[in-house]
Amino acid sequence: MEKLLSFVSNNNEKFIEELKAFLRMPSVSASPEHSNDMKATAEYLKNHLIEIGIKKAEVITTEKHPLVYGEWIGAPGKPTVLFYGHYDVQPPHPLELWDSPPFEPVIKDGKIWARGATDDKGQLFTHLKAIETFMKVKGSLPVNIKIILEGEEEVGSESLEKFLELNSEKLKCDVIVISDTSMYAPGEPAITYGLRGLCYMQIDVEGPKRDLHSGTYGGVVDNPINVLAHIIAKLKDENGRVLIPGFYDDVLEISEEEKKELKKIKVSAKDIMDETGAPKLNPTENYSVYEAMTSRPTLDCNGIWGGFQGEGAKTIIPSKAGAKISMRLVPNQNPNKIAKLFTKYVKSIAPKTVKIEVKDLHGGFPSIVPLNNNYIKLAKSALKFAFGKEPKFIKEGGSIPVVTTLSKRLKAPCLLLGFGLDSENLHSPNEHFSLDSFNKGILTIIKYIYDLGKK
Amino acid sequence: MEKLLSFVSNNNEKFIEELKAFLRMPSVSASPEHSNDMKATAEYLKNHLIEIGIKKAEVITTEKHPLVYGEWIGAPGKPTVLFYGHYDVQPPHPLELWDSPPFEPVIKDGKIWARGATDDKGQLFTHLKAIETFMKVKGSLPVNIKIILEGEEEVGSESLEKFLELNSEKLKCDVIVISDTSMYAPGEPAITYGLRGLCYMQIDVEGPKRDLHSGTYGGVVDNPINVLAHIIAKLKDENGRVLIPGFYDDVLEISEEEKKELKKIKVSAKDIMDETGAPKLNPTENYSVYEAMTSRPTLDCNGIWGGFQGEGAKTIIPSKAGAKISMRLVPNQNPNKIAKLFTKYVKSIAPKTVKIEVKDLHGGFPSIVPLNNNYIKLAKSALKFAFGKEPKFIKEGGSIPVVTTLSKRLKAPCLLLGFGLDSENLHSPNEHFSLDSFNKGILTIIKYIYDLGKK
Repeated sequence: MEKLLSFVSNNNEKFIEELKAFLRMPSVSASPEHSNDMKATAEYLKNHLIEIGIKKAEVITTEKHPLVYGEWIGAPGKPTVLFYGHYDVQPPHPLELWDSPPFEPVIKDGKIWARGATDDKGQLFTHLKAIETFMKVKGSLPVNIKIILEGEEEVGSESLEKFLELNSEKLKCDVIVISDTSMYAPGEPAITYGLRGLCYMQIDVEGPKRDLHSGTYGGVVDNPINVLAHIIAKLKDENGRVLIPGFYDDVLEISEEEKKELKKIKVSAKDIMDETGAPKLNPTENYSVYEAMTSRPTLDCNGIWGGFQGEGAKTIIPSKAGAKISMRLVPNQNPNKIAKLFTKYVKSIAPKTVKIEVKDLHGGFPSIVPLNNNYIKLAKSALKFAFGKEPKFIKEGGSIPVVTTLSKRLKAPCLLLGFGLDSENLHSPNEHFSLDSFNKGILTIIKYIYDLGKK
Repeated sequence: MEKLLSFVSNNNEKFIEELKAFLRMPSVSASPEHSNDMKATAEYLKNHLIEIGIKKAEVITTEKHPLVYGEWIGAPGKPTVLFYGHYDVQPPHPLELWDSPPFEPVIKDGKIWARGATDDKGQLFTHLKAIETFMKVKGSLPVNIKIILEGEEEVGSESLEKFLELNSEKLKCDVIVISDTSMYAPGEPAITYGLRGLCYMQIDVEGPKRDLHSGTYGGVVDNPINVLAHIIAKLKDENGRVLIPGFYDDVLEISEEEKKELKKIKVSAKDIMDETGAPKLNPTENYSVYEAMTSRPTLDCNGIWGGFQGEGAKTIIPSKAGAKISMRLVPNQNPNKIAKLFTKYVKSIAPKTVKIEVKDLHGGFPSIVPLNNNYIKLAKSALKFAFGKEPKFIKEGGSIPVVTTLSKRLKAPCLLLGFGLDSENLHSPNEHFSLDSFNKGILTIIKYIYDLGKK
């Protein structure tokens, strides 16, 4: 272990120079004019994998931006770790708000400033530099590794999803490691171990065939907006309890162990009110604010429309109204089952005065890695080793689609070891990444691989 | 009376030629390029009033289109009738759908074809020709008359309203006669004796200061759309009963006499379903479909908006949502009082998790002339005299703003003696007016003035 650590400290400057080179490549996945830059970046990564000792590396062409894949399967009997990262970045606009050009990385105040620094080039580079350390110092790794790097994370990961459909065997692994989330606070590491799932529906209501004069027909022809309001009001009561029969049936209660970990995350009602400007929060039954935000299912209307939306008064009974309604799910809720329950319930409460269509637009499974899982325990001690502090266990209320996709397709737990910070301007001008986090991130991954090899 | 009738039949061609001249004037109030035509039409009407014997006639300049006023106060002790009409017309577009040019009147199939033929030039001309008949045959009228003709009915009647505010004494009268509505069917006259009023409100709900990620905050930050749906659901129950406390307090029940008259109007649920395409009608308690459409108050959501309305899925808790909600009122409901009850109730049921703003956008009083009113009785017999048929008594579910304005300002009942037909393409290409209705309309007004003079 000592040799590994001294290699890292001796190569600190080289690592940073290499990261700079990587950051100079304008791999903006959303802009068609950068499509050649995307190809060049993928090519660069493949070569870099070979350079650090992953001889079996390739660029996989897709309908959009290429994937980069590499593997080293030299530790028979040992676990296989899949490292995931994305080399595409957000567009750099508005350029005038940057203190230095987005694709000309600069070191300042112990940070590296460039588009992609924290999201996700800097973070995925911790994996590559940890692997390089093993390969250069020992010529081998104590575990098997696979690496998948995609170029479409910022635009929907479509190509990765298609690739996974056909190549789940190729990517088979025991655990997936992703560094694309945030720490709890500067210097305070965290493991994101749970994400809520999603069931996203649309309701369309149609009453009369055309907009009617509300004076002439008001009182006898039913109104699609009023009907829709009644339906929405019956989906969730005013205390936030979802009223769809069976909705809570599969909900896994928060364990006592989890409750203890979640208590360490300090989020008060006042914090959320200050952050969002909400005048008052919803009641959360017997759950804390943080528990309600991360570990309880809920239902929100994301959009609604119907009739006249302009200035002034137009007296119509609209022909149509519609709404988008999504539910955040927790283990062990199944988005497909929830979509069916939702559809059945909505149809059962809809009056015969209108036609109702219910569509299932999108879904994602909730995901959680049990806290007593061995991969989690090892990650915990690796983070403690590198940062000198016990990591916090955090949960996200949202979903990270790629996490859901990977863990569902590969049937392996997903470890979210994030080294970024919410304050590092990801998706905004002046994105940066702490060099201290970069360095400790590399140490974390080394220690994790090392301990996993002893297993 | 005989002399009067023979004057009408002897002058039939002259009357039609005069109506043609009036219809040739392109008095389109909505088009600024016709502003001089509006002035010319007003000038023409003033001169025409003088020509038919109303020497005291004037054009009243307003901020927009002129009013034309005339009076003959030569029957002391007798009632004063105010005749209202509008000389402005709808724009004629789309021109290519007209069989003959809109401002070149043509006689065909016993009808006169031109923009404004039925709405309202042809109808208001029945008043002028009736008055002319008296003046030319007898040199006087048996009642006092006032005539007000406006040029902004199709664009909101703003100038008339301002004029009435300051000149209600000048227009003081015992009864107002308007011919700008429809008969029950060809050859079957009708008196529109009731109109519903209106109270038009807007609710704006604001939750968080900006759109939030529904994954991160869902479950603790309340959602303005869900809140709005709960509010709307509490405004009216699923049987159509409005739930605002006090809403029905001032509602005048339909009298037995009225019920009998309303029964003569045949409107079935199937008719309305065929007309509108609504799959099923609302329950109407103990009221018939026609009663529910015309004589019962109701509440409709005319528009709603909030959050994401595009294709696909966007997972936000929107910052804002809003809705336009209007109530149709019946005698003796007061729109100002209803607006206050609405506002108070909405605020009382709104949760503290959001900010609510309630705005009163627009209101209009309901209006009704009791069926046993003497002016109604005389109108009934005048219609029977001219058409040879008992008129139907009809009510409109909507409001005609000018009717409300006139009867409120002048505190006089408004008689709606319409000679038009819904099938005469008012507001559409190929507008026309039955010459039979034109002729019988003149006779109706003559008989009405004649009988009123005997009073």
